Amino acid sequence: MSPKLTDSRKEHRSLQILEAAKRVFVEKGYGGVTLKDIVEEAGMSRGWIYLYFQNKEEIFEALLDLQDLQHERYLDELIKSSVSVWEVVVTTISQQFGMLDSSPGAGLMPAFYEYFLIGWRDEKRRELIMKRYEKGIARFATLLQMGVERGEFSPDKNIMDVSKLIASYQEGIMTHSITVGTDNANTRMQVDSLVEYLKSLLHLKSVNVPDDGRR
Amino acid sequence: MSPKLTDSRKEHRSLQILEAAKRVFVEKGYGGVTLKDIVEEAGMSRGWIYLYFQNKEEIFEALLDLQDLQHERYLDELIKSSVSVWEVVVTTISQQFGMLDSSPGAGLMPAFYEYFLIGWRDEKRRELIMKRYEKGIARFATLLQMGVERGEFSPDKNIMDVSKLIASYQEGIMTHSITVGTDNANTRMQVDSLVEYLKSLLHLKSVNVPDDGRR
Repeated sequence: MSPKLTDSRKEHRSLQILEAAKRVFVEKGYGGVTLKDIVEEAGMSRGWIYLYFQNKEEIFEALLDLQDLQHERYLDELIKSSVSVWEVVVTTISQQFGMLDSSPGAGLMPAFYEYFLIGWRDEKRRELIMKRYEKGIARFATLLQMGVERGEFSPDKNIMDVSKLIASYQEGIMTHSITVGTDNANTRMQVDSLVEYLKSLLHLKSVNVPDDGRR
Repeated sequence: MSPKLTDSRKEHRSLQILEAAKRVFVEKGYGGVTLKDIVEEAGMSRGWIYLYFQNKEEIFEALLDLQDLQHERYLDELIKSSVSVWEVVVTTISQQFGMLDSSPGAGLMPAFYEYFLIGWRDEKRRELIMKRYEKGIARFATLLQMGVERGEFSPDKNIMDVSKLIASYQEGIMTHSITVGTDNANTRMQVDSLVEYLKSLLHLKSVNVPDDGRR
């Protein structure tokens, strides 16, 4: 019989587990983590954790879903508070790489790459990768489409293709920055070049960039 | 006492082991392979293999060195047979991605990513990553510099920075193509865009592209 908990308490518990799991995955990557590590970090009994998640994979997936949700909320807020779609685009790109400076080891990213790049041989994992890829590409394409509709961008290329190009480029900068460090990869220069490249792909019309003091 | 073998026989043996190891790494990735798998695939005794390599990591490193050597020979030949440095650049980029079509599963690449992206937490492995990164960046920069000296390119950016940018972009296209497949990633379009981007970074002067019929 499952313990009697209100929904909000359940959600709170579940978040506590995910936060503990995140700390462990950040520290050890994906492969090196056991359910026992998560149990210990969360400070709950194994039984409690089983009420919410069956295994490490489920916890990691839930953590990725949570991060997606947080990112979507962040994006919604950013769209409301920005003067242009271009500003939103530049801010989200900078924010992603800013994480490299603020959290040594790049937070959850190495565990993420481990999970997917090693997991691609597993059919179920492959499906999850595919879904995440498509969702990410579509999300950025929707943002770019908003810019087209507002008359900010007039790209020659298909919007989905632009989204795929930028996703690859970001991914490459991210993996190189993690593996050789931001100094060796010259990450700052790379991110600036990525933004310049995107600008040229979009044929940016009215340049409303953050901090340029114009409206 | 080690068996009496001439140097060329030794090299032949060593190559046999590396070829067998390659087949196993291509099939199973890095983590999933044991020394036993390599021993069985090579059809030699474990003792024989220990004369050449102490462990799986040494075999993998030797395999990467061999691939580097083969790539350098290929590049030298290509430089001799091409009409322009730009032709060499385009051919090497296409060749890298062509592998995605010819070998399903992208050959040794997944094992390579596994080895380095998981291994970056290990200090020794980190050093090896760094060396390989620097070598690869320098090799491509040398090629670009040759184009500058021959008057083909006149980039605004530093040649090393251009090399780092293209390396990231290639890496991203490669990882996405492996994880979601070349159709979903639209790899052909991505590689064409990468070449266009590089062209704009280099401010290509005389356009000697392969198959354009001009000299």
